[in-house]
Amino acid sequence: MSAVHALTIADILREHRRSRPATTAAVDGPVRLTYPALDARTCRLARALADAGTGPGDRILYIGRNSVRLQEGLLAAARLGAVFVPANWRQSADELAFVLRDLAPAAVLWQGGDLEPAVRAAREAVAGERAQEGCLWVRCDGRADGDAAGADPYEELIASAAEEDPEGDTDASLPVLGLYTAAFDGRPACALLSHAALIAHDAALFQVRRIGPGFTFLNSGPLFHVGTMMFNLATFHAGGTNVYMPAFDAAEAARLIEAERVDHMFGFGPMLDAVAEANRDEDGKPRHDLSSLHFASHSPAWDAQVTVGTDPWSVSGMGGYGQTQACGMLTYLALAPGGEGAAGRPSPMVHVRITGPGGEELPAGETGEITARGPSLFSGYHARPELTARTLSGGWHRTGDLGRREADGTITFIGPRLRMIKTGNENVYPAEVERALKAHPGIADAAVIGVPDETWGQSVAAVVQCEPGARPTEEEVVAHVRGLLASYKKPRRVVFTDAVPKDGHLPDYAELDALYGGGGYPGE
Amino acid sequence: MSAVHALTIADILREHRRSRPATTAAVDGPVRLTYPALDARTCRLARALADAGTGPGDRILYIGRNSVRLQEGLLAAARLGAVFVPANWRQSADELAFVLRDLAPAAVLWQGGDLEPAVRAAREAVAGERAQEGCLWVRCDGRADGDAAGADPYEELIASAAEEDPEGDTDASLPVLGLYTAAFDGRPACALLSHAALIAHDAALFQVRRIGPGFTFLNSGPLFHVGTMMFNLATFHAGGTNVYMPAFDAAEAARLIEAERVDHMFGFGPMLDAVAEANRDEDGKPRHDLSSLHFASHSPAWDAQVTVGTDPWSVSGMGGYGQTQACGMLTYLALAPGGEGAAGRPSPMVHVRITGPGGEELPAGETGEITARGPSLFSGYHARPELTARTLSGGWHRTGDLGRREADGTITFIGPRLRMIKTGNENVYPAEVERALKAHPGIADAAVIGVPDETWGQSVAAVVQCEPGARPTEEEVVAHVRGLLASYKKPRRVVFTDAVPKDGHLPDYAELDALYGGGGYPGE
Repeated sequence: MSAVHALTIADILREHRRSRPATTAAVDGPVRLTYPALDARTCRLARALADAGTGPGDRILYIGRNSVRLQEGLLAAARLGAVFVPANWRQSADELAFVLRDLAPAAVLWQGGDLEPAVRAAREAVAGERAQEGCLWVRCDGRADGDAAGADPYEELIASAAEEDPEGDTDASLPVLGLYTAAFDGRPACALLSHAALIAHDAALFQVRRIGPGFTFLNSGPLFHVGTMMFNLATFHAGGTNVYMPAFDAAEAARLIEAERVDHMFGFGPMLDAVAEANRDEDGKPRHDLSSLHFASHSPAWDAQVTVGTDPWSVSGMGGYGQTQACGMLTYLALAPGGEGAAGRPSPMVHVRITGPGGEELPAGETGEITARGPSLFSGYHARPELTARTLSGGWHRTGDLGRREADGTITFIGPRLRMIKTGNENVYPAEVERALKAHPGIADAAVIGVPDETWGQSVAAVVQCEPGARPTEEEVVAHVRGLLASYKKPRRVVFTDAVPKDGHLPDYAELDALYGGGGYPGE
Repeated sequence: MSAVHALTIADILREHRRSRPATTAAVDGPVRLTYPALDARTCRLARALADAGTGPGDRILYIGRNSVRLQEGLLAAARLGAVFVPANWRQSADELAFVLRDLAPAAVLWQGGDLEPAVRAAREAVAGERAQEGCLWVRCDGRADGDAAGADPYEELIASAAEEDPEGDTDASLPVLGLYTAAFDGRPACALLSHAALIAHDAALFQVRRIGPGFTFLNSGPLFHVGTMMFNLATFHAGGTNVYMPAFDAAEAARLIEAERVDHMFGFGPMLDAVAEANRDEDGKPRHDLSSLHFASHSPAWDAQVTVGTDPWSVSGMGGYGQTQACGMLTYLALAPGGEGAAGRPSPMVHVRITGPGGEELPAGETGEITARGPSLFSGYHARPELTARTLSGGWHRTGDLGRREADGTITFIGPRLRMIKTGNENVYPAEVERALKAHPGIADAAVIGVPDETWGQSVAAVVQCEPGARPTEEEVVAHVRGLLASYKKPRRVVFTDAVPKDGHLPDYAELDALYGGGGYPGE
């Protein structure tokens, strides 16, 4: 990319300062910042962090709830060519210590209050380690670090540096944001997202959610998650207004929607129900006018209070298929109104292949791994070269998720790939069979394993938890799967259990193999 | 850009083939092509051109009216890493010969009919020149080259090659489209537009014109001009339908709008009037239903027939400030509803500075050169290294146009820079003073030159053509300019003339200098 094509997150802010001198960039409690004010503060923050030793490629860790300070930290990192990482603040001291060791940050911006014990314990756990030396710790919750005199170390840091733009060309293909995500080997990995990738992802949101100047977004979900962050970034890119709340609170969300004329918020089912409920006064009348919010239809109570959106995102069902590694969304329901596939069509900024185990593209109707390419994809994982090489082998991102191209070209997300069963010469993905099993009305949960088989290498076995009162027979279960999938994918054996062992949201395959004789997987 | 971030125009077509197997990509007279059919034809065309010697970096010249074959040529070039150049088919034989010498194309796709004499004469003029050796000439208007037997050399070429995708990674930062534009030195120059730049420009049109799946665009303006081409490309990128007409015809446009449920067309004042008029039958009733067209309000007759658009592009006044070198638009009125500046705000894919003669950024309110940076900008000019270096010096594109940042951050386009007058130590741009002069109700046209001055280096002189019947005095004219601009910019002398000498749309400054004693310009 030559210099004339450069556009970083910091350049966007510089242009907003010129183009939008009076526009409110951020609202966070009593704090309201115009674009020039946001620009000035992040110039100072970048200079102060640079003075303390943060340079290109360094990590700046943020441990705290949503705040405009998170956005300031990101924009300061953008100016410095550094990587800003907002960590999940719900993590335990041990988990935070892992993050500190994984990132070896040059600076940590942290909030106190109820987060303080875990942050302090994590800091103590890594104290004295060589990689942590010289790290600048800045308390940024508006209260003093260690005294009650009302000092604010974060504001003191900002005030300590000059406002002049520490201008310098940062390569837009370098990472600027890191978000932790679950990796296949069990350890969280920090996905690195470049300026160019975030900017490309914005373009798709501009299209499907109609984000433009004047757009106001309520940051009602956690910004350490890409689901909220992607809207924050697109709103910023379009020159709109980001409204922050530290954490989701239904009544406060309703108040902010009216006060700031919010166009969009991060929210799904239970959050929307909570807002609709909290906004009813004793007589059942709305407390606040939520009509500025243009959102997908959800429930009679919700629809009566907000404006049901006419943008493609609201009309076609929000979402699609997404991943942190795709900067958010890879496919959008909004791009496939009425389509067969449950995940819609790819973003205009990516191309997608459904591939078999050898990386070959599969025809429509066959299940394989979702692989993708395009400017909105991530740049690999921080400090995980093998995992990065494996994931991005051949110049395509292997999502680790299974999908299928439908006859109309749309995509269905099947489930995580995790592992594969080899029976005869055929590949069977447990997630696909589990999806079919769970489509049976009498089945509440299911897991599928491979059992060593002398003839076929492995055979498919299903562990099934029935719905209360239901008791399908083994034959019924097998016939049900046979009706949905190719015959070689049907279980040869069905075991009934009271509860499928879980590892988080997913089946605990190690436990299942131990309990039911699984093994013989390809590559083992 | 690493492989995982790759996205070329050819990749977009490959993805459409997967994602939109039944969507109509193009309508051109009796020809209707789905995305898979368009993909298959361009695979064949690319293979056939490669077999005939066209390779990466080579130019493919297209001389002809609008046709799906123009789009096929571009997409074949995209597959080969070649550059597709649709020339202005209205050009004379001499002008076409200049283009042939400038490009030294590997292949020429040309239409006959009324274009044939000029094309043949141009071909003869360059015959025998070394740079033209081995060039493949393919007549592509559906009629035989030199016989009347109904053969179609273009279709024969396509049929001669296999359909397999000549897959291979093309760097998206390389040029794929060349469009001729006026250059400062008087010779046309071919601006080179990369895959990445065209894709970035699409993103802005997605936002302001709300282009998404299902969007249907009538190619009613010439595709050798970026104004029509940019909508063609964004429609293609979004998976919409491009409808072609060989050249603008008002009655045919009305018929196509109804038949294809066209959402948008290329059109400005007189074209819109012509469609509204041609679509009235003897009784004044509309012949065709134009309600699918969502367009800016224009006139009562127009507004009554189309649907007045609610997208930002239609609402805020179409356009803004654009240039071929920006792949189309650099600023959009749609991004600055109600703003002061006549050209709106920058595209989200660029950043813009108003700069003084030394390249320094000027504050709001001062007139200087519009300079820009961002992924949607061009890559320089074909075979014009000095011009490219001068235009893109310092990593910013110098547009050669003057503009001003208003207090609200919006931009006003003033006029072409052309040259500068130096009076005292101050810079005066003729276009800015001319704009002020023409704002006087009694002035029909005006030109401004610099006259050598012993004290000041140069002094400003105005050549003014009055409106019929109007006769402002010299003092009135000077006072009028003084009321609009800084005092040093006002003319010291005003000459009245019956007609300002013109060079195309612009004042003929050489003639004006000769007639009125201009000279002493800085750098002379």
